[in-house]
Amino acid sequence: MNIAVVGGHKCTKRIYNIAEQAGRMIAQQGWTLVCGGGAGVMEAACKGAKQAKGLTVGILPSFDGKEANKYLDVKITTGLGYARNVLVVRSSQAVIAIDGEYGTLSEIAFAFSAEGESLQPRGGNNPKPIVGIDTWKIKGLKQVSTAKQAINYIKKKLRGKKNA
Amino acid sequence: MNIAVVGGHKCTKRIYNIAEQAGRMIAQQGWTLVCGGGAGVMEAACKGAKQAKGLTVGILPSFDGKEANKYLDVKITTGLGYARNVLVVRSSQAVIAIDGEYGTLSEIAFAFSAEGESLQPRGGNNPKPIVGIDTWKIKGLKQVSTAKQAINYIKKKLRGKKNA
Amino acid sequence: MNIAVVGGHKCTKRIYNIAEQAGRMIAQQGWTLVCGGGAGVMEAACKGAKQAKGLTVGILPSFDGKEANKYLDVKITTGLGYARNVLVVRSSQAVIAIDGEYGTLSEIAFAFSAEGESLQPRGGNNPKPIVGIDTWKIKGLKQVSTAKQAINYIKKKLRGKKNA
Amino acid sequence: MNIAVVGGHKCTKRIYNIAEQAGRMIAQQGWTLVCGGGAGVMEAACKGAKQAKGLTVGILPSFDGKEANKYLDVKITTGLGYARNVLVVRSSQAVIAIDGEYGTLSEIAFAFSAEGESLQPRGGNNPKPIVGIDTWKIKGLKQVSTAKQAINYIKKKLRGKKNA
Repeated sequence: MNIAVVGGHKCTKRIYNIAEQAGRMIAQQGWTLVCGGGAGVMEAACKGAKQAKGLTVGILPSFDGKEANKYLDVKITTGLGYARNVLVVRSSQAVIAIDGEYGTLSEIAFAFSAEGESLQPRGGNNPKPIVGIDTWKIKGLKQVSTAKQAINYIKKKLRGKKNA
Repeated sequence: MNIAVVGGHKCTKRIYNIAEQAGRMIAQQGWTLVCGGGAGVMEAACKGAKQAKGLTVGILPSFDGKEANKYLDVKITTGLGYARNVLVVRSSQAVIAIDGEYGTLSEIAFAFSAEGESLQPRGGNNPKPIVGIDTWKIKGLKQVSTAKQAINYIKKKLRGKKNA
Repeated sequence: MNIAVVGGHKCTKRIYNIAEQAGRMIAQQGWTLVCGGGAGVMEAACKGAKQAKGLTVGILPSFDGKEANKYLDVKITTGLGYARNVLVVRSSQAVIAIDGEYGTLSEIAFAFSAEGESLQPRGGNNPKPIVGIDTWKIKGLKQVSTAKQAINYIKKKLRGKKNA
Repeated sequence: MNIAVVGGHKCTKRIYNIAEQAGRMIAQQGWTLVCGGGAGVMEAACKGAKQAKGLTVGILPSFDGKEANKYLDVKITTGLGYARNVLVVRSSQAVIAIDGEYGTLSEIAFAFSAEGESLQPRGGNNPKPIVGIDTWKIKGLKQVSTAKQAINYIKKKLRGKKNA
């Protein structure tokens, strides 16, 4: 199971701490952390995941990975620029959005686009499980205050999918 | 010069009319219309552009283009699903967002991501010219009421780029 | 109907002439020419297509299109680098490969990969119609000597598809 | 360091054994194995890597990963179909091609395309280190007979890059 943490490459200390805890809790669940591989929220989540001996994957925009943070177990250098945001979402079973700028907004949008095998739009009726912390206020996006609440929300949603 | 019109594959008659006028005015400027190639806002913009004898390009999500509207001069079937949204934005010099759902939101986000050759994020400080009509209320996104206002806004922004 | 001409961004005068004729004949069929948008074989094919008042589309690797040849009606700047080769093939109903280096080889390979909606490999049993002129000798790739032979081969193959 | 093993989703027992040994030796070097994530050569390489307690990454064509082999530590579901072949190559520092069909051919071609930050073609003069075993006979592609020879060739090439 891959869980994505998406957020900006710059953030405050408070946001960094929340992202670090989110990463740690993802690892404690036995989940793999997927992110964009860079600094800021991405770095914090990876740092947290490694504290709990989790596995961290960065899907990087560049060809050479020079923007990679130092807590990545797997670096996927795509050379796709921000187009790699789509892959961060597609390769994960759920998404936690923390803070962030327009790149994060694109990832939130993609989580709601709910693509499937058919490559046909499904009108946002069946989004990928996603939860936000201090991020864009977007219709349909559940917002919580702590990493723990985010993890619990994701767990509940994933259980719902399994039983569906 | 390519100008993108982005919006949902379903829309009201009122929105359809606005998108049709936007397409017509794009063609009247001598610009090429780029869109996602489908129904709704995309179809309306293409219909308008063809009324003014403009050129219309659809960057389609499927492999076979069966979702294409009937006003497309050029069909680019990508097989990329919603990942093609990135290409609608990248291949255009400016973007007009009309109404729309989460796919449209991803296109707005990409316009603000302001990528360049370096594949490095530039923090939204240098977005691609973009304007919205009855669409997502997003920080930094100029909203206008009519197709004419949208075209004028884009023209002013593109002149600014040229002089910069 | 889109027909792709793929080949290198450098070529001899002899190859340039063949590509130019191929482009001209594509336009004479009423087909749209799709290519990678650059110099060499791509430029020659576009030049030929414009002589016959055809429509030319370049799917370009860069963000800014500075590598574009001057005979393009539509520039699709992808920012994808050579990953755009996939799109040149996907967006066309048939492919003519002329001369070329490793980028051309990737396009030949993609034509044979025969993808469909299912995103499942089909083992090369159902390739996209493709023909080569003075290009890579690849298993299954029909080679001819002239643009006219290439066009005739593609026409026959497309008729076969239609009747299937 | 990521090393890709590319090859078909079907293969003979002999090829399977070679790929399995290649995967094992990649893991023994402390390298991460990257592949397309499917059956055949990909599965064999992953199986071998896990025998040596290595890390395995599959960059999968589908949205849901149902084609994944059972030896993957990390599944990157891309929804890109065969376009994901580009990413298998881009995300690796070297490539071992074993047997394979047209998908493998596209990966060989991309390794030779030698893309860099500039998104400009470099004419195959600076390919990514690549070696083949019982695969397509392509100009410039070094062919060896055993997994051990392939690993040694890659090691030598990577040392050369480092010293350059």
